[in-house]
Amino acid sequence: MKFTTYLRDGAPRLAVVDGDRIIDLQDADSNAPADLRLALKAGIDLHAAAQAALKSSAARQELSAVKLAPLVPEPGKTVCLGLNYFDHAKEGGRDKPEYPWFFFRGASSLMAHGDAGVVPRVSPKFDYEAELAVVIGRKVPRHAKEADALQYVFGYSCFNDMSVRDYQKRTPQWTIGKNFDGTGGFGPVLVTADDLPLGAVGLRIQGRLNGEVMQDANTSDMIFNVAETIALLAEVLTLEPGDVIVMGTPAGVGQARTPPVWMKAGDRYEVEIERIGTLVNPIVAEAP
Amino acid sequence: MKFTTYLRDGAPRLAVVDGDRIIDLQDADSNAPADLRLALKAGIDLHAAAQAALKSSAARQELSAVKLAPLVPEPGKTVCLGLNYFDHAKEGGRDKPEYPWFFFRGASSLMAHGDAGVVPRVSPKFDYEAELAVVIGRKVPRHAKEADALQYVFGYSCFNDMSVRDYQKRTPQWTIGKNFDGTGGFGPVLVTADDLPLGAVGLRIQGRLNGEVMQDANTSDMIFNVAETIALLAEVLTLEPGDVIVMGTPAGVGQARTPPVWMKAGDRYEVEIERIGTLVNPIVAEAP
Repeated sequence: MKFTTYLRDGAPRLAVVDGDRIIDLQDADSNAPADLRLALKAGIDLHAAAQAALKSSAARQELSAVKLAPLVPEPGKTVCLGLNYFDHAKEGGRDKPEYPWFFFRGASSLMAHGDAGVVPRVSPKFDYEAELAVVIGRKVPRHAKEADALQYVFGYSCFNDMSVRDYQKRTPQWTIGKNFDGTGGFGPVLVTADDLPLGAVGLRIQGRLNGEVMQDANTSDMIFNVAETIALLAEVLTLEPGDVIVMGTPAGVGQARTPPVWMKAGDRYEVEIERIGTLVNPIVAEAP
Repeated sequence: MKFTTYLRDGAPRLAVVDGDRIIDLQDADSNAPADLRLALKAGIDLHAAAQAALKSSAARQELSAVKLAPLVPEPGKTVCLGLNYFDHAKEGGRDKPEYPWFFFRGASSLMAHGDAGVVPRVSPKFDYEAELAVVIGRKVPRHAKEADALQYVFGYSCFNDMSVRDYQKRTPQWTIGKNFDGTGGFGPVLVTADDLPLGAVGLRIQGRLNGEVMQDANTSDMIFNVAETIALLAEVLTLEPGDVIVMGTPAGVGQARTPPVWMKAGDRYEVEIERIGTLVNPIVAEAP
């Protein structure tokens, strides 16, 4: 099952994907939720709602014709992992981490498939990071075990964790370089966990700059897999429905190249994950 | 003007403070907002709503008799500064930072005045940090200047940025050690900006463990003041109504003492800021 979040009259709406088309869940059932996070929070059976929508005569729209929103427009938390592929840790001169380098993104940094990533006025050092995103479906009990962790995952999507490298390194805290407006590409669709290998392992993940392959790896290359990451987070905090975990990027980022590659206005970055989809974001410069 | 957020039937409600008593804004006017962030987002004139409530015959409740919620229960972002008092940077062996060490807290870490701070099962290294919290009232335009920044502040409150020190230092990213459930004390009241010195400068800030003064400083000792911090953030991101900035802690934290002082079950930490109020949190141990 695939879901997406699109904009109607400026408000995000949840839709099920039917091939190249989408069905608004509220068009199919006026009692259905309009927002993925609220639907998950309310414990609504989205598989059943989607099945009903697919069987209904509700209007279809072309997926390519609608304006999308970030897949979860306002997650309670967006937890990101740094250095979660060993080849990427190495290209940055880092050792293999013994614990994930967690940092958070705020919702104000998120953008949809098709939205423009923005080279900030204050820095040209604008880099890409192809990543797997995990959407939590049900509240994870504190101290949940790794063996039980995947039952709380609703599904998976693509993420581009665009990074402003000089701000990321102004202090040892990376957070600010990961939170510029217009830097967190998230979408275009979510594939539910039951339609993918357990933990979304074994999926090819590619990043392409203007069509050229810059990152090419497999989700099985992660140091901390999805189940382990959820269990580590559950030691610390409550993961809630609609929370997002962004699983880190493989090697090939722009800053590690000689000379460095920075994204600039007119570029386009694609994040493709096998069996999930392709997230495309054009790049523009912030207005002076 | 003073506001607080309290719980009625489990849901957070906005109230104006009238001496030792509070008036629920919706009790005074059924069209009034029930939530501080939503009220600010909707651009509601909270001064006028509070004035009307104070003049109304709506029921009063004792502030000391209600169960409070975190002042903003679900901020869009909670941006925290590390090392923003030079004496605290020094006690940790750090230089004076040339840029704030920003990190984020998630809403799941926040708690109210009176709620228990929780010593985690996984670590006894549980420390206190008395801080000034800033609540954004209106959307801050990107690249707002320092000279214009304070007009976007709705008010100020107290915060205890309780920290799990070993998790904070497991990697260079502090985020995870700052995001345990039950560690971000926030309240009890907000004092609107017009009732305080511009930028909340010149206010004594104290932290007391079981009544003993552990931290004693002045908000004028901050390295990056409120206006400067807002301007630095506006270079990067959009500050939205209901976003919170937590301004860092002065010297005296437990980890810098010889021997170190960790909070344990049965303790109580108070954060008092002159002209704002006193945030009190008892300390308990997480259930085994």
